[in-house]
Amino acid sequence: MTKPFRMKVIIPINNASYNDELKEVVTAVAPPDLYIEVDNIKAGNTSIESRWDKTVNAPHVVAMVVQAEHDGFDGVFVSDFDFCGVEEARELVDIPVVGGFRPSAYTAMMLAEKFSIVTFAHSVMDMQSSHSRLFGIAPNFASISPIDLTVHQLVDRDKVVEKVYQASLTAIEAHGADAIILGCTGFNYIAEPVARLLKEKYQVNVPVIDPNHAAVSYLYGLIRNNLSQSRLTYVTSPNYSGTEYSL
Amino acid sequence: MTKPFRMKVIIPINNASYNDELKEVVTAVAPPDLYIEVDNIKAGNTSIESRWDKTVNAPHVVAMVVQAEHDGFDGVFVSDFDFCGVEEARELVDIPVVGGFRPSAYTAMMLAEKFSIVTFAHSVMDMQSSHSRLFGIAPNFASISPIDLTVHQLVDRDKVVEKVYQASLTAIEAHGADAIILGCTGFNYIAEPVARLLKEKYQVNVPVIDPNHAAVSYLYGLIRNNLSQSRLTYVTSPNYSGTEYSL
Amino acid sequence: MTKPFRMKVIIPINNASYNDELKEVVTAVAPPDLYIEVDNIKAGNTSIESRWDKTVNAPHVVAMVVQAEHDGFDGVFVSDFDFCGVEEARELVDIPVVGGFRPSAYTAMMLAEKFSIVTFAHSVMDMQSSHSRLFGIAPNFASISPIDLTVHQLVDRDKVVEKVYQASLTAIEAHGADAIILGCTGFNYIAEPVARLLKEKYQVNVPVIDPNHAAVSYLYGLIRNNLSQSRLTYVTSPNYSGTEYSL
Amino acid sequence: MTKPFRMKVIIPINNASYNDELKEVVTAVAPPDLYIEVDNIKAGNTSIESRWDKTVNAPHVVAMVVQAEHDGFDGVFVSDFDFCGVEEARELVDIPVVGGFRPSAYTAMMLAEKFSIVTFAHSVMDMQSSHSRLFGIAPNFASISPIDLTVHQLVDRDKVVEKVYQASLTAIEAHGADAIILGCTGFNYIAEPVARLLKEKYQVNVPVIDPNHAAVSYLYGLIRNNLSQSRLTYVTSPNYSGTEYSL
Amino acid sequence: MTKPFRMKVIIPINNASYNDELKEVVTAVAPPDLYIEVDNIKAGNTSIESRWDKTVNAPHVVAMVVQAEHDGFDGVFVSDFDFCGVEEARELVDIPVVGGFRPSAYTAMMLAEKFSIVTFAHSVMDMQSSHSRLFGIAPNFASISPIDLTVHQLVDRDKVVEKVYQASLTAIEAHGADAIILGCTGFNYIAEPVARLLKEKYQVNVPVIDPNHAAVSYLYGLIRNNLSQSRLTYVTSPNYSGTEYSL
Amino acid sequence: MTKPFRMKVIIPINNASYNDELKEVVTAVAPPDLYIEVDNIKAGNTSIESRWDKTVNAPHVVAMVVQAEHDGFDGVFVSDFDFCGVEEARELVDIPVVGGFRPSAYTAMMLAEKFSIVTFAHSVMDMQSSHSRLFGIAPNFASISPIDLTVHQLVDRDKVVEKVYQASLTAIEAHGADAIILGCTGFNYIAEPVARLLKEKYQVNVPVIDPNHAAVSYLYGLIRNNLSQSRLTYVTSPNYSGTEYSL
Repeated sequence: MTKPFRMKVIIPINNASYNDELKEVVTAVAPPDLYIEVDNIKAGNTSIESRWDKTVNAPHVVAMVVQAEHDGFDGVFVSDFDFCGVEEARELVDIPVVGGFRPSAYTAMMLAEKFSIVTFAHSVMDMQSSHSRLFGIAPNFASISPIDLTVHQLVDRDKVVEKVYQASLTAIEAHGADAIILGCTGFNYIAEPVARLLKEKYQVNVPVIDPNHAAVSYLYGLIRNNLSQSRLTYVTSPNYSGTEYSL
Repeated sequence: MTKPFRMKVIIPINNASYNDELKEVVTAVAPPDLYIEVDNIKAGNTSIESRWDKTVNAPHVVAMVVQAEHDGFDGVFVSDFDFCGVEEARELVDIPVVGGFRPSAYTAMMLAEKFSIVTFAHSVMDMQSSHSRLFGIAPNFASISPIDLTVHQLVDRDKVVEKVYQASLTAIEAHGADAIILGCTGFNYIAEPVARLLKEKYQVNVPVIDPNHAAVSYLYGLIRNNLSQSRLTYVTSPNYSGTEYSL
Repeated sequence: MTKPFRMKVIIPINNASYNDELKEVVTAVAPPDLYIEVDNIKAGNTSIESRWDKTVNAPHVVAMVVQAEHDGFDGVFVSDFDFCGVEEARELVDIPVVGGFRPSAYTAMMLAEKFSIVTFAHSVMDMQSSHSRLFGIAPNFASISPIDLTVHQLVDRDKVVEKVYQASLTAIEAHGADAIILGCTGFNYIAEPVARLLKEKYQVNVPVIDPNHAAVSYLYGLIRNNLSQSRLTYVTSPNYSGTEYSL
Repeated sequence: MTKPFRMKVIIPINNASYNDELKEVVTAVAPPDLYIEVDNIKAGNTSIESRWDKTVNAPHVVAMVVQAEHDGFDGVFVSDFDFCGVEEARELVDIPVVGGFRPSAYTAMMLAEKFSIVTFAHSVMDMQSSHSRLFGIAPNFASISPIDLTVHQLVDRDKVVEKVYQASLTAIEAHGADAIILGCTGFNYIAEPVARLLKEKYQVNVPVIDPNHAAVSYLYGLIRNNLSQSRLTYVTSPNYSGTEYSL
Repeated sequence: MTKPFRMKVIIPINNASYNDELKEVVTAVAPPDLYIEVDNIKAGNTSIESRWDKTVNAPHVVAMVVQAEHDGFDGVFVSDFDFCGVEEARELVDIPVVGGFRPSAYTAMMLAEKFSIVTFAHSVMDMQSSHSRLFGIAPNFASISPIDLTVHQLVDRDKVVEKVYQASLTAIEAHGADAIILGCTGFNYIAEPVARLLKEKYQVNVPVIDPNHAAVSYLYGLIRNNLSQSRLTYVTSPNYSGTEYSL
Repeated sequence: MTKPFRMKVIIPINNASYNDELKEVVTAVAPPDLYIEVDNIKAGNTSIESRWDKTVNAPHVVAMVVQAEHDGFDGVFVSDFDFCGVEEARELVDIPVVGGFRPSAYTAMMLAEKFSIVTFAHSVMDMQSSHSRLFGIAPNFASISPIDLTVHQLVDRDKVVEKVYQASLTAIEAHGADAIILGCTGFNYIAEPVARLLKEKYQVNVPVIDPNHAAVSYLYGLIRNNLSQSRLTYVTSPNYSGTEYSL
């Protein structure tokens, strides 16, 4: 077997306690020729629940992306549904960089006419619903429903599954959703049981997208195709000397 | 190594002469754990250059998709930019089925703000530009430009590369495109040299999407994630007994 | 009186039992100088309740449209809300061809700010709601509501009227509809009683569009104006020799 | 033969010199059972070339529509591409009232993927292009091109035909139009020769819509279907006593 | 202090009884260097509750706008949410002219992701919801909710406040609104108490836009920036001699 | 005269050399009761020419906004067309905060049907054109044209005026723009001469929007109306203790 592709997964919060779990989660969908390394940023806030959290943490994400390219990684996934630091980092490196929203949304759009996002709290609803406007895919977006837990309260998986399932039912029955996206990269091991409950209910397949899984598969595909972000869209600033983040 | 995933690639034209080339093309992006089988339909028209060609060939594609599921394949890629038979087949099987357009478009949208399609002839421009309306992604669509060769005339690769490159320049300069999608699954070995020419020209990366490559990677990701089309969107007709396409 | 215009109405299902009723329905709105002939296809499925049904029946519709042009008809209406075979047939003939959706939608848009579709079953909701995206009229589309009968169960007219009326009330009160389109060409003799009930309820006129009526009037207008589909949009395939459907 | 339907055509300008010509034009597409009466308003401006002209003339149009209903007409066509007084009059009468834009646009949309408007002067471009936004059909709108003659200068038909043809070519080649709408109800006897020139050029049918023809046919269809504007959309003001325009 | 800017506020109804109150309302947000004069039209209907009312009153508004420019005013606000006469008057004068809707909508869009309009009656819902389509801002529009009082019944302020508050809650909870626009320039002294109630309920600021306040501030900004309507968008008719409204 | 309103203007670049000029620019449109203080951030990059520059500078902007509220300012304008730090800061303070794009766009939309942005360099075109998508106003956006100078090269005003004028002509003639927005808050003293040149050319008013002027006037209006951002849209993170930026 030839040398594997190397993917860096960055947890964009100043908290190492999710690293092992995420490593396990993303490895579950990794092809045999993909090596994945997971790490978190070492400064900034301990969760991302607002635009401000993103702003505080983004510079640290960008630095880690630049370092990843320097270390020879073939692509970077920033494990944040709201893609903390991703758009900025894409201006500085040649390897592909992805966050959670776009891979999840495009996967849902591949499979269904309309998707709803089930997210963790009311407070991020506007921030997350604006993603569909920004990326020009609004007709595919049915709704966003929060289960109103903070990201730090997501430890009781049975409760999360039950709440995500209930929010999914509302999205399907009342908002016309045909697929569900989990709007939080901390929703691990949730997609599969919710999909099972929905299948029991409707007797047919209803896709439930796990953003970490979707993003890893998407990024692997980009790497495999030797594709990266358009540098017509993502132009390096003349202010960037390339040495800001050097070792 | 565990049992590989099995993907069926269907060439939806009544012409076996592209099978070997396509096998070679798609294998180039296949992960180690993916087995791919390529076959073409055995009735219908010998190319798809109109809505009518799609209608003539679609029933044969659908039958082959049903057979593929019966044969234990994990997913089917219908190698047609205009997804001949795909939407219909999705109503009849549980394994994921994809065509060329959506994987290509979503890959472009992952990488750039606007994409243009470079296709083979004026005659398919309206048919292909309507895809962006149908799938609710119009703001990402810059333009469609034909190189005005029929699908049967695409044998002179140097000429195709030159024409696609010129059309790409127009798309970028005049229509605001940041990424190029090849609007024909017969454009093999074209994306890479065009991307190289664009990089020489602009000194930065401009993605050029090969629909066969994009689709195989996309479908592999779906299979890997255990995801398939929403059967809320794609409902089986009461007219379908399940035995229509039986052996 | 001069020679009348000749319109062919094709019932795109393999079932002759609706022919007489439809003849009666469409004749009711025919101008004096319009001769209408109604016939059904002689192969394919016996109803259209999915994309797959459309695909199975479309080739037979196309053949019958080609024959109609050959027989000197001035235009063809395919009596199917979801326009089975229409887009394809338009590539092959010079006479105008219409289905049920567009005449109904444009008639509703002529009269009201937003329309809702009341259709027969949940299973076609996504297929039918995508029409508004495809034809670029989404802002005029309020909702789609099924009454959840199969097309074969539509014999009890009083029940259908009551269910369509109830669905219309929901569309008006909850979804902001100002006009109702019947989303099934099998809903005969329903529009008028539902309109009467809505007028009783609201004391003002609320349009209820019968797709067969709307289409016949629309097509007559095209014929009268000597207009037909743009062959820049609908281009004949080089694969079409013109003899495929000859007698 | 039964009693014919009666249609009133209102020329919304204070100028009687076009009445006879318009009578001839609209009669050309009238079915045998349609009686048409043409008249112009007797006050206001002598042409409509701006929003202000519309405002000055609209009250006179409204009064004449009310009178037409009182006189037993079955429907009213206000022969103005920009539908002077139409939206307002619809609130006061039960018979259907149409202007020029919507019938033309919906006819074009019935036949082609994108239409362009060829109009008489630069000065009305923004006013007319906003119609597509207002009626929620923007994706179907390719462009608007003026030939830069005032409505009073449209007497030299050969010149108008040549200029409209040239503008149509630009719309097709540069803006992606597949159908042409004449953006002026004073463009009589122009559509047919322009269509012939386009057919010579492209060797296929390209629809050219005459707004007077389209509107008469459209309105006849509404009358025939016993349909009129939704009075949920068009509500009578409590200020209207019904006697304002009495004789 | 230098000579103040002079703003004319036109109440576009034939009823002088609101002049003093409106003077008081608009003065409350006037900068020190702004002189405001309020007057109403002296003919036409006594309220604007339909498109027809607008048409009846618009010519009188236009005349008063022309007069205001002649009298040396620097800008005109027509105190009507539905901008009676505004678009037309903009073609005739060089000073900026605004109505109620656009300043309110753009102010709401400055502050929140989605706004809802709370208006006085069901009868104007369609007319007012079409504004968002016309001005190309539909993605920002959540809903429109009437409190179902006529404009003449708006004297009981406590009742209006309570009803607007209830409608605002529905807009926020059920339609996703983040800001409220009062859809009636007769809703004076309502915005502030409703905003206070919403703050009590949600414990955070929810903007409630008073259209008179928003418009005066907006217009003052235009005057201060020496900006006026684009005369490429608003072209003077060749029919306009400039003397129609002379003294 | 009562106590004036106090506005803080933040230059979001680590460079104090524009402070005096901007003070002069914004004071020119300040009402008598408005006190304005201008300051720049003291860390970060020296210009904003990319998403990365925004990310580097945003935390410093946010801190200065928080400080401004603490210091009793009534509102903050971040003098950056691309609103560096604005969305984030809005989550942390109760006083209104605005950037350059939205006030400019809404001012243009108030005055014209379509606007074009004339900006300084190709490199920011995609970043800036995405603003229209994000804020749901895309139908009003005609195009973006760069003059291809870096922000540091904008010292030769005559050259800038000439280049902006040429780009404006293209925007008007080729892209359908009716108003021009300067896409850079460093384009001082440019709007007025360009507007004069356009008036000479077209003989009518064509608005040219200076983003600093538009923003100051807009923000003053918000302050005057006692309005601020919706905290339903902009929610404070639970991670924010309020002391992060304390003195």
